[in-house]
Parts: sequence; C-alpha cells; structure tokens
Amino acid sequence: MPAPGTVSELALIEAIGAVLARRAGSRVVRWLGDDAAVVRADAFAVTSVDVMVDGTHFRLGQAAPADIGHRALAAALSDLAAMGAAPGEAYLGVVLPPSLTDAQALALHAGAEALAAATGTTIAGGDIVAGSCLTVAVTVVGWAGAEEPLVGRAGALPGDLVGVTGTLGAAAAGLAVLEGRAQEAGVSPAAGHGAALIGRFLRPLPRLAEGRALAAAGVHAMLDLSDGIASDAHRLAQAGGVRLALDAGSLPLAPGVTAVAHALGRDPSELAATGGEDFELCVCVAPEDRAAAEAAAPLTWIGEVLAGTPGVDWRGEPSGAAGWRGFEH
Amino acid sequence: MPAPGTVSELALIEAIGAVLARRAGSRVVRWLGDDAAVVRADAFAVTSVDVMVDGTHFRLGQAAPADIGHRALAAALSDLAAMGAAPGEAYLGVVLPPSLTDAQALALHAGAEALAAATGTTIAGGDIVAGSCLTVAVTVVGWAGAEEPLVGRAGALPGDLVGVTGTLGAAAAGLAVLEGRAQEAGVSPAAGHGAALIGRFLRPLPRLAEGRALAAAGVHAMLDLSDGIASDAHRLAQAGGVRLALDAGSLPLAPGVTAVAHALGRDPSELAATGGEDFELCVCVAPEDRAAAEAAAPLTWIGEVLAGTPGVDWRGEPSGAAGWRGFEH
Repeated sequence: MPAPGTVSELALIEAIGAVLARRAGSRVVRWLGDDAAVVRADAFAVTSVDVMVDGTHFRLGQAAPADIGHRALAAALSDLAAMGAAPGEAYLGVVLPPSLTDAQALALHAGAEALAAATGTTIAGGDIVAGSCLTVAVTVVGWAGAEEPLVGRAGALPGDLVGVTGTLGAAAAGLAVLEGRAQEAGVSPAAGHGAALIGRFLRPLPRLAEGRALAAAGVHAMLDLSDGIASDAHRLAQAGGVRLALDAGSLPLAPGVTAVAHALGRDPSELAATGGEDFELCVCVAPEDRAAAEAAAPLTWIGEVLAGTPGVDWRGEPSGAAGWRGFEH
Repeated sequence: MPAPGTVSELALIEAIGAVLARRAGSRVVRWLGDDAAVVRADAFAVTSVDVMVDGTHFRLGQAAPADIGHRALAAALSDLAAMGAAPGEAYLGVVLPPSLTDAQALALHAGAEALAAATGTTIAGGDIVAGSCLTVAVTVVGWAGAEEPLVGRAGALPGDLVGVTGTLGAAAAGLAVLEGRAQEAGVSPAAGHGAALIGRFLRPLPRLAEGRALAAAGVHAMLDLSDGIASDAHRLAQAGGVRLALDAGSLPLAPGVTAVAHALGRDPSELAATGGEDFELCVCVAPEDRAAAEAAAPLTWIGEVLAGTPGVDWRGEPSGAAGWRGFEH
C-alpha cells in the first residue's frame, strides 16, 4: 500500500510541473493537477509507448539523469517519426529509486522537457512512484488529420528501393567509447569522433521532420531502426510479405564507427547493422519516387525489395559476423 | 544496449497479441505490429498514466500476475472515471524481471485484458522490456465529444455537498487480511468478509459508469480516492480554493473493515480515510442537484463545502489517529 503523498513528494511534483511548459499552439486543454489530461484531438491519434530501465537501456552514472529523460522521450518520439506523424503530447511514468535525489529526478524531467521543446511536444502528464530501479515509461501521442498519410511497416512492394536516413552504428560505438572500450583505436570522449558518438548514444534525435517529409513523398513502408537494421529489416519483410536484398557494404557508417569496430574486433558493417538504437528511419520507395524521397530527407540506398518468401538476403555479409543471420527469425 | 529481439521474446509478444482483442466499436484503426497504434479520435482525448511497481504497490506472490495486470489497468481507468470520460484504449509498458516466466507475463496481460473487456477498453499497444523489478506502466485514453461534460478536481462551491460512492477501507483491510494480520478478529480469506476485502484490494473495479453518470448529473468537482479521503480531500480543497467540512463518522465502511481495524489496533474510520486504493469517487454537488446525483450513483454524504482558507476540517476525527491531520499539506 503506497504511502499517501508526502510533503516532499508534492514538492518534487510541483518542481517538475514548473520545468514543464505548454507549447505554443498546444492542443492541451487541461494538464497537470487533474486526474487526467484533456487534449483537443485531430482526426487520428497515433500512440506509442517506450520503456527504458536502468541496467537494461542505460546505466545511471554513465548516463546523466537529463540524458535518460532525453533518451526515453527520443525513443518514443522516434516511433511517431516512423509513422510520419506530428508529435503532440508525451506522458512520463517514472519509477524513482531511493538513491536518486530530487535534483536528479528534476534533471531527468528537464532533459525530457528540453527535447519536448525542441520537437514541439507538450509533456502533458505522468506519474511518479517509488521503486527499486530507475525506470522511465514514455507514452507519446501524435496527431494526423487523415489516416492515409500515415505510413506503417507493411506496404513494401517488389521493385521498391530500400533507403536509410543518416548514419548507422553511432549509438553502439558511442556506448563503447563511453565505456572506454575504444581507446586502443584512439577513440575517446576527447578524440576521434568520440564525443559525437557518445552524443548519438546519449542524446539521439528522432527523425520527426524527415519522417513526415518521407510520408508526404509517398514512401510505401517505414520503420525506425531501434534494434538495428539486421533485425528491423526482417520486420519490414514480414509485415510486407516481401524479400529484402540488402548490401552490407552500402550501410552508411557514422564517422568513427570503423575505428571503434576495429578496437572491438568487430566488422564495422556488422556493428552498424546490429548495434541498434540509432533511431534512423528505413524506408521502401517506388523507383519513380526516388527523387521525391531524396528531396524529403538525405537517404542512402542499401538495397531493394523482391518478391519471394518473406525474409532478408544480405550481400557482402562479413563472414566473421556470427549471429547476424541468427536474427532471421 | 538491449539485445535485438530474440525468438522467445517474439513468441511472448505474439502470445500476448493473441490474448488481446479489439472491442466491438473500437476506435483502433491500426494496433500491434506497427511502430505506433492509430486510433480514430473524438473531439477530446482524456489521458492518464499510472505506474505500479512490485514491492511498492503489490507483492508478486501475494498478488497473482493476473491480479497485477487487472489492478494496474483499474487504477488508470479510475482516473478516467473521475473525469467522467468513456474509456477507449489502454497501452501497457511492462518491465519483466528474469524470474517471471513467460506464462506469468502472459497471465498479467490476460488479467488486464479481462478488465479491458469488462469495461469496453481496447489494449491497443505497449512495450515489454527486461529489467530487475516487475513494473506495469499503464496509459489509458478516454474520449469525449465536448469539453464541458468532463469534470475536474476544481469547481467545488461553498454550499456543495460532499459525497462518495461505494464503501471505503476495503483495499487496506483486504491487504491486512491477505497478510494474515486480521486473524485475531476472525477475518481470514475464508471468514468474516475476508475474501470480499481481498477482492477489493487485488481486483478493484473503476467506477466508470458512475463517473459518467455523475458528470452528466452536473457534479461540480470529482476525483477518485486513490490515496484515501484524508489526503484526497485536500486535493479537492486546494484545486477548488475551498474548505471542506467532513464527518469522520459518516464515512461508509466496507463490511469487515471495523473488525480488521480492531485487529490492527486502529480506528475503523481512520483506516477507511487513510488506507487508500479503494478507487471510489468523491464528488462535490450543489444541494439542488442532490437527487440527480443520487440517481446517477449510490452516494454517501460525508460533509459540505465552505468558503475559507483551502483545507479540510474533520468532525469526529478519532483522537488516536496520529498522522491523520499530518496529511494536511
């Protein structure tokens, strides 16, 4: 049975409320302080939940509280990006362990709020409870005036080109740098793209504008690369009932990923394909829409869609990448 | 860095998907299997988040996985009830510890789904991650065609009557029975209302129909009793800028609460006022709307609203109830 609200709990909730802001043009009619938030809707709500746990998705200490708030919101917003939806509101459910100070709890919310401000999202509510393990459960809601412009994972057609935004492998490489595992390759927080890679791990930026532009450009299918293209490509293939032929050598590596991969004794493409949490977008595009898609967002083309048993064929998969094919389930 | 989806994780997600159902008349257009759910909106979305953690809100073992799923969803739905909103969708973010079997994880979702079915809620998405402590973060979304019928915590006016639905103290007494702390009063799972009290703790029923009916009857303010009337009444008073005069002797005690309170050496009214988690509704109603409110839901009148410094005055507060006044923050 939880203890009724104590004075210090209420003070923390009040302090958190003070760092949150309703955005200009926000749909929020009633927010903090009622049993529930009330939001003026558009025709369709697009909703996703993302949970991050200390020890699984981050380690407090390695990641600052503000990074953790940013990252949990970023991962959830990335799902909206992958649908081509505009972000609206976010709700933060946070489990605070006794070891976390009020200042740290506040910093976590401030980190989320900074990303909310940068993306036009209003943090409209949440819940704060006591527990043993720092956990951030983020629900994000985006809005769309019609269903058609929203892009799902299904819809890829044989003949489509497969493209990705940005660069891959950065988050996995950033974590390795953060943990001091890339020093023999000369990559550290102070050298060899180390700071940028760490930033990609701790502060990923959801591709919201790119997702909406790609949806408007008519891409057939889209998802965000949260687990890594090696497994996420299978989701596209299964959802669309198609076969993807992808080229490992074409994967766009973030600067510094090759050096970090060598320090780890791994193939750079394999690190980029399996590392995950880059939160770039992967799209399937009709060849005639190629120029429109490229105008919507910088893309690297990494393969094509074929008819056949749903699955993924990799060209140029490095022979030493044990387990890569293992993701073909 | 989380491992990419393994075969067993995917099998669990598939099994969970199989126990979830889209309700007849559901607003859900796209759900599991995409990056986000897509839901046809009404004019206003009403959204609340509730997080429950093993060791804080329940103890696995004392509560079965199905109870935990039910209870987490019930607590979130109770917030919609308190706004007078009709439930729409729920999203479950679940942290699974290694000790929890797949069958238990499935049972947790099935427990939530059973309550979803009973309340017309569609579980439209969620997230499942690995962590050290079983945690269930529930986001519920209700819908309303207009803002006016929604009732908040603010709005109580001097002269209003204060009423509560159902009976109080049941959840706290049920927990005591579950823990074998009420046996000397002859209350056990097999005797003296014990089973019913345990049910109120493990399987609370959100007052959704009552909340909507009370909202339609024109109540001025409403909230759900999650922490207990001793502290929740302060929320009503602060939100409305009013003083509440409440009568401890009028609190409607659930059958068996008096016996359990005596076994615990506590005053029954104090247990009912501070135990929390009964998820009944507390309303402030204009005297002329009293009959309409009583027709909307069975109510017990426990006091009235006065002008004055925001706060709560208790008549008949038992002298031995140390700390009750301590909730006046």
